[in-house]
Amino acid sequence: MTQPKEEIRVVAFDVFGTVVDWHGSVRREVERLGLGVDGADFARAWRSGYQPAMREVMERGEWIVLDVLHRRILDRVLADFGLDAMAEAERRQLNRVWHRLEPWPDSVEGLARLGTKYIVCSLSNGNIGLLAEMAKHAGLPWDCILSAENFKRYKPHPDTYLGVARTFDVEPGRVMLAAAHHSDLEAARKCGLLTAYIERPFEYGEDQPKPVAPWERNTLHATSIVDLAGQLGC
Amino acid sequence: MTQPKEEIRVVAFDVFGTVVDWHGSVRREVERLGLGVDGADFARAWRSGYQPAMREVMERGEWIVLDVLHRRILDRVLADFGLDAMAEAERRQLNRVWHRLEPWPDSVEGLARLGTKYIVCSLSNGNIGLLAEMAKHAGLPWDCILSAENFKRYKPHPDTYLGVARTFDVEPGRVMLAAAHHSDLEAARKCGLLTAYIERPFEYGEDQPKPVAPWERNTLHATSIVDLAGQLGC
Repeated sequence: MTQPKEEIRVVAFDVFGTVVDWHGSVRREVERLGLGVDGADFARAWRSGYQPAMREVMERGEWIVLDVLHRRILDRVLADFGLDAMAEAERRQLNRVWHRLEPWPDSVEGLARLGTKYIVCSLSNGNIGLLAEMAKHAGLPWDCILSAENFKRYKPHPDTYLGVARTFDVEPGRVMLAAAHHSDLEAARKCGLLTAYIERPFEYGEDQPKPVAPWERNTLHATSIVDLAGQLGC
Repeated sequence: MTQPKEEIRVVAFDVFGTVVDWHGSVRREVERLGLGVDGADFARAWRSGYQPAMREVMERGEWIVLDVLHRRILDRVLADFGLDAMAEAERRQLNRVWHRLEPWPDSVEGLARLGTKYIVCSLSNGNIGLLAEMAKHAGLPWDCILSAENFKRYKPHPDTYLGVARTFDVEPGRVMLAAAHHSDLEAARKCGLLTAYIERPFEYGEDQPKPVAPWERNTLHATSIVDLAGQLGC
């Protein structure tokens, strides 16, 4: 793990799972609504439609924002859970839970500390409006919200990673992507970005811990965003 | 001036002249460099190339970010002021003065107060990287940075104003544009946005005050961003 720390100008963050706890937030919302279904299962079912939906959009050469994809998946999941009767206004309200996701306990402090030395931005497949409302709700101190929507391509398309470097007029090697997903980091690394893995063992719930072992290919490995800030001297 | 205040969801701000003092900031930078030219005249000459450069880009159907246009204009202005000898590194550094513009005294407080009730974003012809560095430098508390770069069109193209509404998935009538320029507000109004004029009499320097009389067509008229916040109940 070589660390050309002085070269970093921008730290870009994956958001769902890395900065915010989508599973816990969606689960709690579903439980609050008293729908009579398992909130954890519902959250995972909803999220599991995410990658296929984006892949389909990319394969068709379309551009559709994530709010719309989330809604399409939600309608399917509601049917699967026997909740077909949910009214339109309630569906719309539930779909916006992705705008109100809660941060992990270290996220706000970690981002703020990184912001003292670097430009700290999002690089999420969430649309700009979703990310802006989430940041306002959760108090995420982004210097700049960047989204797949800026580049009209979903991660892991190279245009997204290279787009961060272009936006700030720096070489890709001066951008670090921080994410809780090795696949995202792998795609960023292929574009020449530095990478930081953030451990989020309970992204899918405390009952379904995921492995968070280090991969040597990543520039840094951190147990939290605060840990990453510390490693980067913030 | 009718004021459907409860309907407003987003307040989008023009930036150069409205939120930051480009004239004073560029003038002071030029004076600091001791180039032996009049800083105020230099600033105005540089800025005067701005509208024609964007118009040319739009007429050609191109997309070129403002940093690049600023640099082209700078090279011409340096020649006009007899400063052809300036080295490349110094030109590059000077061109980035637009990333370091100072806010008007009321801007940070005004934006923060508006942010307690509304989504507060930029809508500037400055590129995203420029706006993000400026926000960091000046402490501008944007919820979201939106730029002509998001829409690949410069204001006053309708795609920019309507793009704000689309980004946040609201009707144009729930977006208010705040600007110190009636032409910008006029174009926004044609797209169905609400408008707020902000008085900046010294945008072009204290020696060249500009008229700031109210236009009845604007939804609101404010002497500052803090005044706007007060009028909107923040």
